[in-house]
Amino acid sequence: MNDRALRNIVVGLGGKANGVTREDHFQITVASEIMAILCLSASIEDLKERLGRVIVGYSYAGKAVRCRDLNAQEAMAVLLKDAICPNLVQTVEHTPAFIHGGPFANIAHGCNSVRATKLALKTADYAITEAGFGADLGAEKFLDIKCRFSGLAPSAIVLVATARALKYNGGVAKTALGEENLEALAAGVCNLKAHVENLQKYGVPVVVAINRFASDTEAELDLIRRTCSEIGADFALSEVFGKGGAGGEELARAVVAACEKPSEFRLLYSDSASVKEKIETVAREIYGAGSVNYLPAAEKSLDSILSADPEFSTYPVCMAKTQYSLSDDPAKLGRPRGFTLTVRDMRVSAGAGFIVVYTGEIMTMPGLPKRPMAERIGIDADGCISGLS
Amino acid sequence: MNDRALRNIVVGLGGKANGVTREDHFQITVASEIMAILCLSASIEDLKERLGRVIVGYSYAGKAVRCRDLNAQEAMAVLLKDAICPNLVQTVEHTPAFIHGGPFANIAHGCNSVRATKLALKTADYAITEAGFGADLGAEKFLDIKCRFSGLAPSAIVLVATARALKYNGGVAKTALGEENLEALAAGVCNLKAHVENLQKYGVPVVVAINRFASDTEAELDLIRRTCSEIGADFALSEVFGKGGAGGEELARAVVAACEKPSEFRLLYSDSASVKEKIETVAREIYGAGSVNYLPAAEKSLDSILSADPEFSTYPVCMAKTQYSLSDDPAKLGRPRGFTLTVRDMRVSAGAGFIVVYTGEIMTMPGLPKRPMAERIGIDADGCISGLS
Amino acid sequence: MNDRALRNIVVGLGGKANGVTREDHFQITVASEIMAILCLSASIEDLKERLGRVIVGYSYAGKAVRCRDLNAQEAMAVLLKDAICPNLVQTVEHTPAFIHGGPFANIAHGCNSVRATKLALKTADYAITEAGFGADLGAEKFLDIKCRFSGLAPSAIVLVATARALKYNGGVAKTALGEENLEALAAGVCNLKAHVENLQKYGVPVVVAINRFASDTEAELDLIRRTCSEIGADFALSEVFGKGGAGGEELARAVVAACEKPSEFRLLYSDSASVKEKIETVAREIYGAGSVNYLPAAEKSLDSILSADPEFSTYPVCMAKTQYSLSDDPAKLGRPRGFTLTVRDMRVSAGAGFIVVYTGEIMTMPGLPKRPMAERIGIDADGCISGLS
Amino acid sequence: MNDRALRNIVVGLGGKANGVTREDHFQITVASEIMAILCLSASIEDLKERLGRVIVGYSYAGKAVRCRDLNAQEAMAVLLKDAICPNLVQTVEHTPAFIHGGPFANIAHGCNSVRATKLALKTADYAITEAGFGADLGAEKFLDIKCRFSGLAPSAIVLVATARALKYNGGVAKTALGEENLEALAAGVCNLKAHVENLQKYGVPVVVAINRFASDTEAELDLIRRTCSEIGADFALSEVFGKGGAGGEELARAVVAACEKPSEFRLLYSDSASVKEKIETVAREIYGAGSVNYLPAAEKSLDSILSADPEFSTYPVCMAKTQYSLSDDPAKLGRPRGFTLTVRDMRVSAGAGFIVVYTGEIMTMPGLPKRPMAERIGIDADGCISGLS
Repeated sequence: MNDRALRNIVVGLGGKANGVTREDHFQITVASEIMAILCLSASIEDLKERLGRVIVGYSYAGKAVRCRDLNAQEAMAVLLKDAICPNLVQTVEHTPAFIHGGPFANIAHGCNSVRATKLALKTADYAITEAGFGADLGAEKFLDIKCRFSGLAPSAIVLVATARALKYNGGVAKTALGEENLEALAAGVCNLKAHVENLQKYGVPVVVAINRFASDTEAELDLIRRTCSEIGADFALSEVFGKGGAGGEELARAVVAACEKPSEFRLLYSDSASVKEKIETVAREIYGAGSVNYLPAAEKSLDSILSADPEFSTYPVCMAKTQYSLSDDPAKLGRPRGFTLTVRDMRVSAGAGFIVVYTGEIMTMPGLPKRPMAERIGIDADGCISGLS
Repeated sequence: MNDRALRNIVVGLGGKANGVTREDHFQITVASEIMAILCLSASIEDLKERLGRVIVGYSYAGKAVRCRDLNAQEAMAVLLKDAICPNLVQTVEHTPAFIHGGPFANIAHGCNSVRATKLALKTADYAITEAGFGADLGAEKFLDIKCRFSGLAPSAIVLVATARALKYNGGVAKTALGEENLEALAAGVCNLKAHVENLQKYGVPVVVAINRFASDTEAELDLIRRTCSEIGADFALSEVFGKGGAGGEELARAVVAACEKPSEFRLLYSDSASVKEKIETVAREIYGAGSVNYLPAAEKSLDSILSADPEFSTYPVCMAKTQYSLSDDPAKLGRPRGFTLTVRDMRVSAGAGFIVVYTGEIMTMPGLPKRPMAERIGIDADGCISGLS
Repeated sequence: MNDRALRNIVVGLGGKANGVTREDHFQITVASEIMAILCLSASIEDLKERLGRVIVGYSYAGKAVRCRDLNAQEAMAVLLKDAICPNLVQTVEHTPAFIHGGPFANIAHGCNSVRATKLALKTADYAITEAGFGADLGAEKFLDIKCRFSGLAPSAIVLVATARALKYNGGVAKTALGEENLEALAAGVCNLKAHVENLQKYGVPVVVAINRFASDTEAELDLIRRTCSEIGADFALSEVFGKGGAGGEELARAVVAACEKPSEFRLLYSDSASVKEKIETVAREIYGAGSVNYLPAAEKSLDSILSADPEFSTYPVCMAKTQYSLSDDPAKLGRPRGFTLTVRDMRVSAGAGFIVVYTGEIMTMPGLPKRPMAERIGIDADGCISGLS
Repeated sequence: MNDRALRNIVVGLGGKANGVTREDHFQITVASEIMAILCLSASIEDLKERLGRVIVGYSYAGKAVRCRDLNAQEAMAVLLKDAICPNLVQTVEHTPAFIHGGPFANIAHGCNSVRATKLALKTADYAITEAGFGADLGAEKFLDIKCRFSGLAPSAIVLVATARALKYNGGVAKTALGEENLEALAAGVCNLKAHVENLQKYGVPVVVAINRFASDTEAELDLIRRTCSEIGADFALSEVFGKGGAGGEELARAVVAACEKPSEFRLLYSDSASVKEKIETVAREIYGAGSVNYLPAAEKSLDSILSADPEFSTYPVCMAKTQYSLSDDPAKLGRPRGFTLTVRDMRVSAGAGFIVVYTGEIMTMPGLPKRPMAERIGIDADGCISGLS
């Protein structure tokens, strides 16, 4: 149960027999480093290795204490023995799908498990996987973290967009997104272009899939189609919401065609770049930032991370940034450029294998809504449950 | 995971958005009132009713706030939907057995679930159920709490004892229990007599089962057998540990015979007795106390319990007492009499339906051993687990 | 400022740079061991010695850490340099008086400073000093603690009583104390007798001073006078409240006469008695208890006190007991006998030099009244203060 | 006693009777708003008015709760009754001086009391007062806060500098400041120019006083003298450290002469400017910043300050900035320009009458040195103290 009262706590009160008094925190499962580790592990052996590397505290001398120092990694792996197995489900049209793992896309890498993706690749001709939030967050992490660790290389990338979101990026109010507005769309399409250009840097063909809404006009779709053509991206309408699988045929054909194109996947930065070089590469190449400003706490954290273990400098960076803008300011729409990205703090996820770079406040234990779901849930005398959806 | 650092905590730190700062506590599952409720519930409807009655806090005006005031009982029952179903397992000789529920035998009633017992009664000619700790704790609670709520009435009671424990009660050191010592046994057998006399007050035939150890001598067993005969209890040797099911035949025959005897089960006290009368009845009749001393905190708690809801006065009492002595002093062996039982505090388990009476410190979140089990657990690359036992 | 929110706190939150997280407590000045030390110190050298002995914590190995281990006793003595000098004031009739020091009379010894008493003895023919609460608390501690440490020996003891209080001890309601009630007085006078008998055990003449109220009748005063005569105590009326110094002449003459009587002051128990012998001597000889019951926490505390430093066994005991009864139960009036005194806990005041024995809850940080005094205090533009009384 | 463990605490633990559990903080006296109030109050009436305005918390509805809502301002003023009186001391040459009040120069205004300054003005022909830290902090606050509230207007401003500090600002290492280095001095003198230009904006003659060190060379002093002449500031050598009062005559004459010059004191910004305009005026005019960046927490705090009481918008701003640079980055020496000043947070000192603007972390409860002073303090049997200095 997630209770925001557990975000910041003091434990071990009541004297020596009740443990050592200290400050601590609870996080929800998806915000836990364990979730990220589960999704990045190739095998039980790899899982144990990663769990063993997790830092649980520091000695008085400042030395990292790892799970393996407590001999905890084996027992932890036992608890995850079943969880590591991909979970096969099906869509309403009986297409098989794996739903397996869900790390946050800010403090973690936001992708499903490596094992599910690999299993999908072995069981079908084409395997499609989703990355959370915008392509500046989810896709960047899928490519620079998950592909880096697993050796996976995509044949093509599908970038999903909507005419509505592009009009919103062009300055239209949320309540007016249902009306045709070619001017705003023309202004907001720079956001789509930015994402396409970003993805092209990875050396893989990009297909733009427009998730069609009933209110989209032909003129609007045409404007987007022309834009894609200008910037060298394929285009396909996706009408799956309205028409089911049949509505996805255009997109499917476009993806198959893209997969046939020559492709040479490359990572955005190499392991050997310094942590700041990695951050600045993502900031400039993906976000469009002009410079990066490190607050003193971030500098201090980076120093102590690197002094805890120099190997951490080879870790990729996992950027915790707002999903509402390409920049770190949720209010900046369209294609912001030349802004200063502020890095507030850094922490190492030593087991997952990346350095989390905080550019804002991230909540790892959400609050409940004013009226919690639980109030609506019911169960009758026969054990039938209601109110779950 | 049980961590003693969670026994006493402060939650809700970090400002208004992170909840209200307050002191709180974690308990292990078996110490939770929810476990007691699960074991006492006759049906999902009864479960919801009991969960809804649980007191989660008090208003500024001192009024009890119940789970039902938060509309939480339905969602809680959903979580327990499967847990409420009895769990059928088998012994190494393929005898069926239900293992279902495990509330503490001090702050809760220490018995398996009502539903498992009733299911057992419907599926076999004889159903045997176990009550935790000594008969002064487990049996008293089985009879006065579980039977009171469920309408169950035992046909016979089996009191398990060992020659070794009786010699220990007669003053023999733990390291010398393997040697014959008729004098000590004669001194300690008063403990067995006390338990038999206690159980006879419930109007049901009592069978004493001696769990035979290899070091028990015939002279010792004979002394116990004669004592049982004097006080009107049946006697049977149980050699199950050494001989398996065959070693239990003598006991089985004795139990079958006892079930044929006339029996008129009665509770030790009525619902309408006052809380103090109930406590004093158990203290005098079962423990052998001369008087009961209520510390000021206990008096204050009783006042606020009864002013929260006068109906609580009809609840049975659930005594939290040491299992090492019939008295509240672990050092008093044999058959202590005339001592003063000190009541330290009381709390109401409004959902379970009893008033917990504290006669000492009870730990509801155990510590780990010096070398935690988890350190020995392992898992190999194929997912095979080792070190669990 | 006393704020009950400071009774129980957690300090050192916010990470390593902000100190070690731990539980702590504030106490008001008079409840601090420092106040007791100030009042028992014969000189600055003695003050430093006692401050240095104060236990501020325990090492991981359980060894006591003293102020002197932190080199703190000198700086602490500097802060108390002026406070240790007795403070001379005068009554409205210009009689000189020292008001100096005020340790609690439960967790501390409840007397003014040794230095003030010795200074008074040097500057006048007769020096009178007051001990707080009833004679079972204040006088016992003055005699067994302050006199023991300082070598002071009183020539006579004045026991102050009122007819009203004795009627109250005889069962009269507080609202009816203004009416003559010889029967109740005869019943309650056993309380006065108990105190006189207690004091006579110290080998010093006792004068009973009745603090006269307007409602006291001659018959009542006569009854008390006759009782005193029976038990060998002198008697004097004190009418100081009504008549000023002149009203104290009878008492003054009685005290002068008592001082002429042969007197051989002796302590109730010797340093070499065990801690439990000391407690039991006070319990039986002064309180009238039949037995002493040590709760487990008290036994455990005593063990750790004596293992921290065996010399603590030579310390006198400082009993923390209710002032409303000779027993530890505030409801027991008159002359209770044969009761069980319950010892809840013990702590050593290593600097003051006594072992505090807790027989109930003691509050060392009082709460404010519903309407705090501070609300009524005022100051005008000229700096004149109002509302202080 | 300042103990960093008191920086961040949780109070009110142990249940309802022990107060409401909440997070709290201790500050040292000089960091308290009370100190700032004491120094800004013109009279006891003004003191009470300001104390009454202090915000002690917020209601559930977010409304500010003031000291006057608790009727606490009168009692607080009583405690400060003597503290508000200026404290007259003398130098070793018997010059009178008031030492009175010491608020921090970051979170408070860093000046001595208004009353002391006014008393000095009434008792001598010339009154000199000091403002803490660099002129960008202390002088700016003296002029924009203390003069604004009190109506004081300086006749001249003395800016104290050293050749060493200017060489340091020119890039010389601390260990090499004793050597002549005209090049570095020429580079660092921009810092002096910036301060002079800043102060000239207030419309008052500026005298630069060089606090002479033995290692200063004539060539260096000459360079500074020429610079002052170029920018229209008077110059005087101060040799008080080496020669006592006689060493100050040149400076005294320069100050007297400056006071004769025409002068028209003006504040840097008006009350009616918005809070952000005030911040930005100080940032641009005094610090040389190019822009101001408000972090989200600062925006949020400003909103809640202004919604608590719109009158707060008329308050001057009290900038909490590092004293090591004209900018908010301690590493930027010389005359930084065009940088972005980052505002981290804001808080209102409603009683003192200003809005504190945080541009970095400010510690309001310092830690003790590795070896606390207290260890060295001693007192002998006669009460003589040693080790204080």
